[in-house]
Amino acid sequence: MLKGWANTVRAHGSIVFIDLRDRSGIAQVVATAELAKDIKEEYVLQIEGLVRNRPPKMVNPNLATGTIEVEAKAIKIIAQAEPLPFDIKEGMNVGLPTLLDWRPLTLRNEKNQAIFKIEEAVIDSFRTTLKEMGFTEIQVPTIVPTATEGGSEVFKIDYYGRPAYLAQSPQLYKQMLVGVFERVYTLAHAYRAEPSITTRHLTEYISLDAEMGFINSWDDLMDTCEVILKNMFADVAKKCERDLRTANGVIPQITDKIPRLKMRDAQKIILERTGRDHTKEPDLDPEDEKEICQWAKENYGSELIFITHYPTKKRPFYTFPDPEDPDYTLSFDILCRGLEITTGGQRINDYQQLLGNVKKWDNKPENFALYLQAFQYGMPPEGGFAFGAERIVKQILGLENLREASLFPRDMGRIDQRLSTDKENNE
Amino acid sequence: MLKGWANTVRAHGSIVFIDLRDRSGIAQVVATAELAKDIKEEYVLQIEGLVRNRPPKMVNPNLATGTIEVEAKAIKIIAQAEPLPFDIKEGMNVGLPTLLDWRPLTLRNEKNQAIFKIEEAVIDSFRTTLKEMGFTEIQVPTIVPTATEGGSEVFKIDYYGRPAYLAQSPQLYKQMLVGVFERVYTLAHAYRAEPSITTRHLTEYISLDAEMGFINSWDDLMDTCEVILKNMFADVAKKCERDLRTANGVIPQITDKIPRLKMRDAQKIILERTGRDHTKEPDLDPEDEKEICQWAKENYGSELIFITHYPTKKRPFYTFPDPEDPDYTLSFDILCRGLEITTGGQRINDYQQLLGNVKKWDNKPENFALYLQAFQYGMPPEGGFAFGAERIVKQILGLENLREASLFPRDMGRIDQRLSTDKENNE
Repeated sequence: MLKGWANTVRAHGSIVFIDLRDRSGIAQVVATAELAKDIKEEYVLQIEGLVRNRPPKMVNPNLATGTIEVEAKAIKIIAQAEPLPFDIKEGMNVGLPTLLDWRPLTLRNEKNQAIFKIEEAVIDSFRTTLKEMGFTEIQVPTIVPTATEGGSEVFKIDYYGRPAYLAQSPQLYKQMLVGVFERVYTLAHAYRAEPSITTRHLTEYISLDAEMGFINSWDDLMDTCEVILKNMFADVAKKCERDLRTANGVIPQITDKIPRLKMRDAQKIILERTGRDHTKEPDLDPEDEKEICQWAKENYGSELIFITHYPTKKRPFYTFPDPEDPDYTLSFDILCRGLEITTGGQRINDYQQLLGNVKKWDNKPENFALYLQAFQYGMPPEGGFAFGAERIVKQILGLENLREASLFPRDMGRIDQRLSTDKENNE
Repeated sequence: MLKGWANTVRAHGSIVFIDLRDRSGIAQVVATAELAKDIKEEYVLQIEGLVRNRPPKMVNPNLATGTIEVEAKAIKIIAQAEPLPFDIKEGMNVGLPTLLDWRPLTLRNEKNQAIFKIEEAVIDSFRTTLKEMGFTEIQVPTIVPTATEGGSEVFKIDYYGRPAYLAQSPQLYKQMLVGVFERVYTLAHAYRAEPSITTRHLTEYISLDAEMGFINSWDDLMDTCEVILKNMFADVAKKCERDLRTANGVIPQITDKIPRLKMRDAQKIILERTGRDHTKEPDLDPEDEKEICQWAKENYGSELIFITHYPTKKRPFYTFPDPEDPDYTLSFDILCRGLEITTGGQRINDYQQLLGNVKKWDNKPENFALYLQAFQYGMPPEGGFAFGAERIVKQILGLENLREASLFPRDMGRIDQRLSTDKENNE
């Protein structure tokens, strides 16, 4: 007996082929026209029948159940479905607004299911690697009293008549907890009130965050990121072989050491390669990120690259300045196939220096009192990083838009349904 | 070479005992007064030395490292700490406001660390059990367009100048995804704008949520909860033996089948036992919950009990009415040692019936359009449940206040630090 959804219903004269879908996959059912007469696509069915081998020419090597079929003896309709507004099967071809306006339905498409099985494997692998390295999993709050990283891109909450905010990251909490557990990680929701709609941003996203104390140098952080990514790509390749095929995914090429390049050196290389002079810019723009990834691939066979030493004034107040040139920081991003998937760096662990920076960045120390306390009472050299889960999935699968890698993406123009705004069609 | 925090520093004439704490535990270091002269508690140290067996009378069976000690040859101060405002070691005895006002410091206390190692094990066990049962882990949003369960206990967000809300639960999303993955679970942040401060509520808490389709009856849901709890208690007992001792935890007594009792029958038993006539009340109050748990323990040897069949008008619009008496629902809570730790039930899966209930509960169908879509296109009989992670930990450890089981608890009077409000001292 099988229970599932009628994925496809195809009549061939007096017999009907039903592809029945459940969480384990698809099974082909053969029924008489009489037994199958009322059945339409997406009906929920209970089918009793006999399993038999398919005729050799009907074997489907792409299905786990491709060598067998079920001859239906009884079919019960568990729930009906309205006629589908469009085909959701293999080759479903809808634009992004339709994909999201019909999310409960379009997620039933096998490619879309595969995207989120891969996301599950990405997250699982992150947790497993860090647990094996002695990290403690922590749960930290998202309602916060002040904007974490400064700036205005923060959502305000009405907290019993007073203002509170949605955390831009679990940053301050994971740092405080280095003083408790030494090595911590968390699967966090991060919120950014992005003032525009791009293909690379969500207003709520999944941040795979970690922080570690007693580092010998900030190289430890990058070394740890390398282990995480190698394990992640290996785990996804192994656990999601079929899902990768279904969603046209290709694991990025990762070398034993991922190339590490200073931002200023990257800008020089970009100038040489393209004539684009961005050597005075404080950050790489999306075109620069694509170009420098192309360079890394050509020169190192790596589809990933560390870009390091971002300017001090462009990074948050807690970022550790480079002792050799304090205008730059011991910080890094990892770019993968032209997109930033990770950001990290060493943090200031000296209380007086941190307090000074809070003020220098025009913040009030009293707004960071609990955070500063952790450094008043003994904090070792430490640092950490955060991986964007949706961005990793986007880059593995070559998705055009980050929204495709979020079950229910939020942006300036959408919370589940489109908001009535001028921007509504710009997704 | 060891690195860690000076947990205690005790001078005995010309030698000094330093208990050095790191994530793996505590090691006793013996140093000369000269080597240890500047060292104070919570200083971060790097100590080189020789490991040797302790004299027999100095062996400490409570420590993993209790049979050895380290004879210091060199000590380097990695970071200093200010003098501690109170003793944070074994037996730390501070009231709740102090515990929370000094959170980065009080979490370094070994009992407090143990609480969160146990919470980590609770969450891990939940995920492992469900994964083994074929559930897919999902990540769902917390910024939502409308109040999930109705009611006014919801936090409002300024979303680009228009209202949005913090999700009271992942309920609607996990249900939609039953139509996609059949069985799903998630570790969610849930937000409740509780209008008062109690020992049992947080405004942001960790909800271990699951939802499953193709149930044969709602008994499947309760059976699954039993498996989850049995595994959870066994896993915590096994993995956290030392933490349980440190935090004075006792695993609740769980029987092969947890007793299942209708709410109305519970009220009759309470009337018989106490003379308190709550038989017309639509819910159990905290005293009732304690009393009926006492009854279950006396009669079944179980510290857990299912209370079932809550009144239809007290449950959300999606709750499945009991076919034998539609004034009551196929819903349940699990009480453990007098406190609700789980809530669940079967959901309405028929589109027309669900649409009718949305209206009957005075909601606008257009506010639930995406949710309703999932049911328009074929949804099997389904249901689910949610476990409160902090509440489970509170009940295992017999904590007086739920806040002790949250790393950074939020309530009406506190976000990290106390808010200036009349309620500030009522925690």
